[in-house]
Amino acid sequence: MDDQAQGFRRPDAAALATVTKALADTFGNRYSANATVRAQHAHTITWGPNQPPDCVVYPQSTEEVAGVVALCAAHGVPVIAFGTGTSLEGHVNAPFGGVCLDMSMMNRVTRVNAEDLDCEVEPGVTRKALNEHLRDSGLFFPIDPGADASIGGMASTRASGTNAVRYGTMKDNVLSLEVVTATGEIIRTARRAKKSSAGYDLTRLFVGAEGTLGVITRITLRLQGLPEAISGGICPFPSVKAACDATIMTIQTGLPIARIELLDALQVKGVNLHSKLGLPETPMLLVEFHGTEAGVAEQSARFGDIAAEFGGGPFTWATRPEDRTRLWQARHDSYWAALALRPGAKAVATDVCVPISRLAECVTQTQADIAASGLIAPIVGHVGDGNFHVTLLVDMDDPADVQRAEDFLHRLVRRGLAMEGTCTGEHGIGQTKMKYMSEEHSPGALDMMRTIKRALDPRGIMNPGKMI
Amino acid sequence: MDDQAQGFRRPDAAALATVTKALADTFGNRYSANATVRAQHAHTITWGPNQPPDCVVYPQSTEEVAGVVALCAAHGVPVIAFGTGTSLEGHVNAPFGGVCLDMSMMNRVTRVNAEDLDCEVEPGVTRKALNEHLRDSGLFFPIDPGADASIGGMASTRASGTNAVRYGTMKDNVLSLEVVTATGEIIRTARRAKKSSAGYDLTRLFVGAEGTLGVITRITLRLQGLPEAISGGICPFPSVKAACDATIMTIQTGLPIARIELLDALQVKGVNLHSKLGLPETPMLLVEFHGTEAGVAEQSARFGDIAAEFGGGPFTWATRPEDRTRLWQARHDSYWAALALRPGAKAVATDVCVPISRLAECVTQTQADIAASGLIAPIVGHVGDGNFHVTLLVDMDDPADVQRAEDFLHRLVRRGLAMEGTCTGEHGIGQTKMKYMSEEHSPGALDMMRTIKRALDPRGIMNPGKMI
Repeated sequence: MDDQAQGFRRPDAAALATVTKALADTFGNRYSANATVRAQHAHTITWGPNQPPDCVVYPQSTEEVAGVVALCAAHGVPVIAFGTGTSLEGHVNAPFGGVCLDMSMMNRVTRVNAEDLDCEVEPGVTRKALNEHLRDSGLFFPIDPGADASIGGMASTRASGTNAVRYGTMKDNVLSLEVVTATGEIIRTARRAKKSSAGYDLTRLFVGAEGTLGVITRITLRLQGLPEAISGGICPFPSVKAACDATIMTIQTGLPIARIELLDALQVKGVNLHSKLGLPETPMLLVEFHGTEAGVAEQSARFGDIAAEFGGGPFTWATRPEDRTRLWQARHDSYWAALALRPGAKAVATDVCVPISRLAECVTQTQADIAASGLIAPIVGHVGDGNFHVTLLVDMDDPADVQRAEDFLHRLVRRGLAMEGTCTGEHGIGQTKMKYMSEEHSPGALDMMRTIKRALDPRGIMNPGKMI
Repeated sequence: MDDQAQGFRRPDAAALATVTKALADTFGNRYSANATVRAQHAHTITWGPNQPPDCVVYPQSTEEVAGVVALCAAHGVPVIAFGTGTSLEGHVNAPFGGVCLDMSMMNRVTRVNAEDLDCEVEPGVTRKALNEHLRDSGLFFPIDPGADASIGGMASTRASGTNAVRYGTMKDNVLSLEVVTATGEIIRTARRAKKSSAGYDLTRLFVGAEGTLGVITRITLRLQGLPEAISGGICPFPSVKAACDATIMTIQTGLPIARIELLDALQVKGVNLHSKLGLPETPMLLVEFHGTEAGVAEQSARFGDIAAEFGGGPFTWATRPEDRTRLWQARHDSYWAALALRPGAKAVATDVCVPISRLAECVTQTQADIAASGLIAPIVGHVGDGNFHVTLLVDMDDPADVQRAEDFLHRLVRRGLAMEGTCTGEHGIGQTKMKYMSEEHSPGALDMMRTIKRALDPRGIMNPGKMI
């Protein structure tokens, strides 16, 4: 690819010096060019290279962000927004250097409109901090990627998680954004009404743009009422296929399940090692139902019938809230649990998403591929959306192992695409999956994305070298 | 506004002649320059002027659409896509002339993936035709604007309707689009997976773009399973405020209501005149619950409690499907019902949408404004979303009446905007609401929309003179 054509390039050394000097003067102790700090603000998870920015600043307001971006725009210096650094595809790397905007000091919940079921937050608020803030309001924010990610980062990667099957993804739960554009201007993408037909959907353009079009500085989010009743638990299955088939039927019959997560036998083993849950090491579904007392009882009974039809069961209920929390924390820790399966290995987590009718086929073929490749790679997934993750445990000192893993990842994406799926359901493109954009999208669609990028970021300074 | 700067202009006469000649030759009897046909393809509803295109063609394939657009692009001739002509804000007018693409012959349901709860349709399929096609599949498509609109038009205006409170709007129910771009290229905006984080959300960029960025030629839609049980009916209230307050509490308590529609007393009178329903002429809510037998019974009982708290009731159930159909058809005919209130008048239908906490206030102030202005204007609304419609009945032969109506419309939009709402929840901008775009959006956001428009439609041929 012609990097120049996409506007990616290292900044001129003099321009960079001008910018870093100005930022050091302005931000004082909220500026750092320390090598360790810089490395911590580049890619730190999975096997990608660590490509640090030239400096890190910690803005405290939208105006400060706008100032930094305007300065960088004037001098052609890259700007990379940073939330918690938990993205998996190299989104926060700085392959062309530049300024990292660490948003962690913009961490206020600025407004909660309980009566409208919405709130407004700064981008550095994490999902757990938001739910902690909402604790006594009767409301919650449902999107839950594994990590305690920042809301700004979650919006930028169009994140989802275990509740997406019921509550949607970030695309569905962001009402409006405040954004600093690539020229340093501050805009609002929409008003606070629940729906609108007034103009282009700028909100959805920035959700999932991975910081390549601007920096998100404020997010208005939809919230949900805490369900009156929650029930859930674990259901073992004789095979991954049986678990997938039960999932497919659950979705097709319209059961309003809140969570339905697959763990394959290897992942369960990892969870047992990491979280000491003592689960039977067989494929299983973790499920949860939200509603009224009568409603969740009815849903649970129906799910039990479906599971039994595919040889699943017996169902173990986690009735006490602390048991449920323990179970779901174990699920969220699946990345770390996977690491427990091969101490010393790097965990490379990836995801694909296919139409649900192809799910059992896709997961089964993937398991066979893992076995044939001699890889250690547990599978876990938001199977209600047709989305699953494979965590490859790779010995980075063994080039053959690395090559096997790379070849497998390539086949996995190709398999998902061949089934009308996407190369990423929720992790995003970042650096790692850029090579699949031209396979996933028609040439005209990719051209259109590049046209939009050039129009909105003519100097190519916003998170360059990512996505397109 | 500088029309030239936005790329709007009448085509050169010679260029136009070249295009129309070529189209007449290619399309034969699927080409018309007949004055009546042209007038029928311009704005025909409410009081806007009728601005006909220079000709109308009826494509039968995406390739034909691409050919027309490429030809028009080469000669700088406007292209206006036309569904059923039921838009309310002048979207299909041709203020600069050009070619109307009547999509009614592209009316095939090309694929139904029952197991994935999705389908693929050509843009000329209407919502009722789609549901007729799906009748024996156990699935339905929930989005229902009043008119039997085309799916392509509904996508283009980001339409919604009575089911949106439960199932979302077109934004939420379009999985992917095939689009002919402004240069005549054919693109796919996304794959068929239920979610994806692979690149900019081109799907949402075209949903609601009102044909100003390209022509939608194929739509992949999410479908819903037909609920096992439906219950619903009518609940009268002592005042519009009481009905709105009951709605607000229903939403806030998280009751998963499928439909909750307000009719004010005047609208009920119109419905009685038009549909002979014999309803008590007082403000009322039409509600519907979807779920299991036990679930809808529980939901109905809870709603009954909430209604009673605000003085509503007694509740009349429409238990037989034919009674429900009659009731909802009457609701969908509210535009025609309004006309019955003042025979000979023009009906000017408009909508605003506010955060639900402001709904009662907004509707009450609007009713007071109607009374003070001496206007005849029933109110009806998708109040669960904070969205309501006012249908002004205007004597077009009385300039004072027209002026009163215009002044009122202006105040209505201003009132909605002042309450953090939008100037249109679901009708779109078209020609009529363009003047409010700069009040609704920050200057930078509007600039960004114009930048996108210029980047994707550099010759300004796609539905010029609309939206921005």
